[in-house]
Amino acid sequence: MTIIDFRVRPPVGGFLKMAVYAEAPRRNRITRIHGFEPAASAEAQSMPMLLDEMDRGGVTMGVIIGRNSGRLGSIDNQEILDIVRAHPKRFVGVASIDPADRRAAVAQVTTAMANGFRAVNIEPGSYAVPMQVDDRRLYPIYAHCEDRQIPVVIMAGGSAGPDLSYTAPKHLDRVAADFPDLRIVVSHGGWPWVHQVLHIAFRRPNVYLSPDQYLANMPGMDDYVKAADGFLADRFLYASSYPFTPVRDYADWFRKLPIRPESMEKILYRNAAALLRINV
Amino acid sequence: MTIIDFRVRPPVGGFLKMAVYAEAPRRNRITRIHGFEPAASAEAQSMPMLLDEMDRGGVTMGVIIGRNSGRLGSIDNQEILDIVRAHPKRFVGVASIDPADRRAAVAQVTTAMANGFRAVNIEPGSYAVPMQVDDRRLYPIYAHCEDRQIPVVIMAGGSAGPDLSYTAPKHLDRVAADFPDLRIVVSHGGWPWVHQVLHIAFRRPNVYLSPDQYLANMPGMDDYVKAADGFLADRFLYASSYPFTPVRDYADWFRKLPIRPESMEKILYRNAAALLRINV
Amino acid sequence: MTIIDFRVRPPVGGFLKMAVYAEAPRRNRITRIHGFEPAASAEAQSMPMLLDEMDRGGVTMGVIIGRNSGRLGSIDNQEILDIVRAHPKRFVGVASIDPADRRAAVAQVTTAMANGFRAVNIEPGSYAVPMQVDDRRLYPIYAHCEDRQIPVVIMAGGSAGPDLSYTAPKHLDRVAADFPDLRIVVSHGGWPWVHQVLHIAFRRPNVYLSPDQYLANMPGMDDYVKAADGFLADRFLYASSYPFTPVRDYADWFRKLPIRPESMEKILYRNAAALLRINV
Repeated sequence: MTIIDFRVRPPVGGFLKMAVYAEAPRRNRITRIHGFEPAASAEAQSMPMLLDEMDRGGVTMGVIIGRNSGRLGSIDNQEILDIVRAHPKRFVGVASIDPADRRAAVAQVTTAMANGFRAVNIEPGSYAVPMQVDDRRLYPIYAHCEDRQIPVVIMAGGSAGPDLSYTAPKHLDRVAADFPDLRIVVSHGGWPWVHQVLHIAFRRPNVYLSPDQYLANMPGMDDYVKAADGFLADRFLYASSYPFTPVRDYADWFRKLPIRPESMEKILYRNAAALLRINV
Repeated sequence: MTIIDFRVRPPVGGFLKMAVYAEAPRRNRITRIHGFEPAASAEAQSMPMLLDEMDRGGVTMGVIIGRNSGRLGSIDNQEILDIVRAHPKRFVGVASIDPADRRAAVAQVTTAMANGFRAVNIEPGSYAVPMQVDDRRLYPIYAHCEDRQIPVVIMAGGSAGPDLSYTAPKHLDRVAADFPDLRIVVSHGGWPWVHQVLHIAFRRPNVYLSPDQYLANMPGMDDYVKAADGFLADRFLYASSYPFTPVRDYADWFRKLPIRPESMEKILYRNAAALLRINV
Repeated sequence: MTIIDFRVRPPVGGFLKMAVYAEAPRRNRITRIHGFEPAASAEAQSMPMLLDEMDRGGVTMGVIIGRNSGRLGSIDNQEILDIVRAHPKRFVGVASIDPADRRAAVAQVTTAMANGFRAVNIEPGSYAVPMQVDDRRLYPIYAHCEDRQIPVVIMAGGSAGPDLSYTAPKHLDRVAADFPDLRIVVSHGGWPWVHQVLHIAFRRPNVYLSPDQYLANMPGMDDYVKAADGFLADRFLYASSYPFTPVRDYADWFRKLPIRPESMEKILYRNAAALLRINV
């Protein structure tokens, strides 16, 4: 059994200053809403314990996604690089950018990809000046990535922006239409716009969904699962959102979902491996 | 068994002139869509029969919500006060306001609360000049209530305005974000934006949901019920929308929903009692 | 058993040039997503085989809907007329219009109805200049049809326009409110806005739903079916979207849905017969 977990925040370095570790009671409350108990590694803030939990859950690799956000905190690309280089067989990185200056942002992308990052993370609603997913200031960056076959992860679900308008699905749909060769991973799965984002994924073959924590015990979950075992089997990505859910228990839970083995194998690792060029 | 029914329109006084009584065939058609037969008390327009039905259903108290609306009809705060004073152990009131003049509206709030009303009802889409939930003209009123710990009931679901844009959930989300200490009860539960309003309630701890009649037999019902027994157990409010559904049969039906006893007790009366400062 | 299939594109004439026949591999991929195997008649592009499949599925009549669209291709009203006149007991037509010039569009409506068409098809998002459903340029046409009791079919679901904003349900709701005597058939059922369009149909008695292919195996399907056997029994229309699904297998599948016989009979033919004035 091999699993690539598309969203893991290890308990080390700058991550420990982010709310997900600094505000453990709030995080644990959310963990329980999703139907899990907090991971021992998250409570102890222990990287060795996380690696052990990954082993026990069959999670071969974790994808560490950068963040550049006033509101949600930031994690520098260099910090992710340090973690990946310390554990090259267990983690790969997705780089964040600062979209304020398009030339600087493109330079960040170039540097990041040269340093081994596998994709670029865009969180439009969480930038210092919140943007919609189809904000024109992001279009040069999308265009740059499309032309170079660089996948982008777009946070277009959950509490992605100051209010619900920042996950309104029309913005995502326009980007998917305007950049048909750009492979887009929708992190947080576009939740709560479940029906709408499944329409987008049905219509746009360049859209991948990773509902991550919003799959577990959340309204609309059954529709995600049905699509994952149907038309989305080649574009659904497994992710625990650790430490919001525990890597091992989430994997145990996910493997019991009503998804056929051939789809499950794609979701757990083949789709992510192909998208991020990972050999497992 | 004690129940506080968060939305009851007794068959007396000005209510009898509203469509819900004056257009009984239309009301009965809706009652049957929700899966119930019309209440005998509604057909007979009999307050003693309603009190008897409340007794038989275990409904200790009913919340009477005022209305100030050209389109939907109005019920004066004084009329509600008369009913509450005639039956002080069976009813409490929520006052309506006229938002056209912010100073007059704030004076109405002050008078109403001094007279024993427990909260203020805002129905943005149904005012003579329909407003969105986050209309700037409502912000001084929201601010006034937030600063004085006065709960507001906002009708942000069902046929709340001239068209569906008046229930678009981004407006509610902004108000919940802009007034984080304002306790907001979403009457009609934000329906039909079920997934979206559950996201809002998940994100904003000051949001309470009362799907009332739109719970019964309506699309999305299962997601409301699941949330009621999960993360919303402390902020879900029971309401029959009588006379759209019968107080007794609705209570019998609701008690059989798959909600654990500890959540059911909160939903049926603890949440409403704490919010409205009712001793039961 | 008598069935009127509200959306059939026979394999003949101009239809063969449209993507649904010209791009068979893509179409067959979609057919399988909906849970069916491609129809033999679609693969062979054979009208006699389609008529035979209709017979075997109990489909007495098919409704052929015109199209006037740069993006999606066009099918001239005359071509539909030719098919209907060749098979007057098996097909009726719904005419398309060009909304660019309101006077010419109204003249098209008049000509079409005189020629035996039963309704008018409007596809706002697919015109050369894409329009929202409530675009003011369509209002004279809606008004004309309302005044003459001519039903309109509005494509307000699926991939109706360049992006998801073209199916945003508030636009449909406004048209239904502004023309309360206009009978509106929502083709593609307003999908993916399932909860929202069911609210609209609940509120507006002039709205009919035909989710057609988006019923089969799509997110939200259970809510459509429940409404079809409830408040929408008189305004739900059966349609296969042939050749996206096979007429016979779709009919076999649909008849097994959990819908009571009295509702099923309305959905399969009584509602369409009354709306289009068809004697069966």
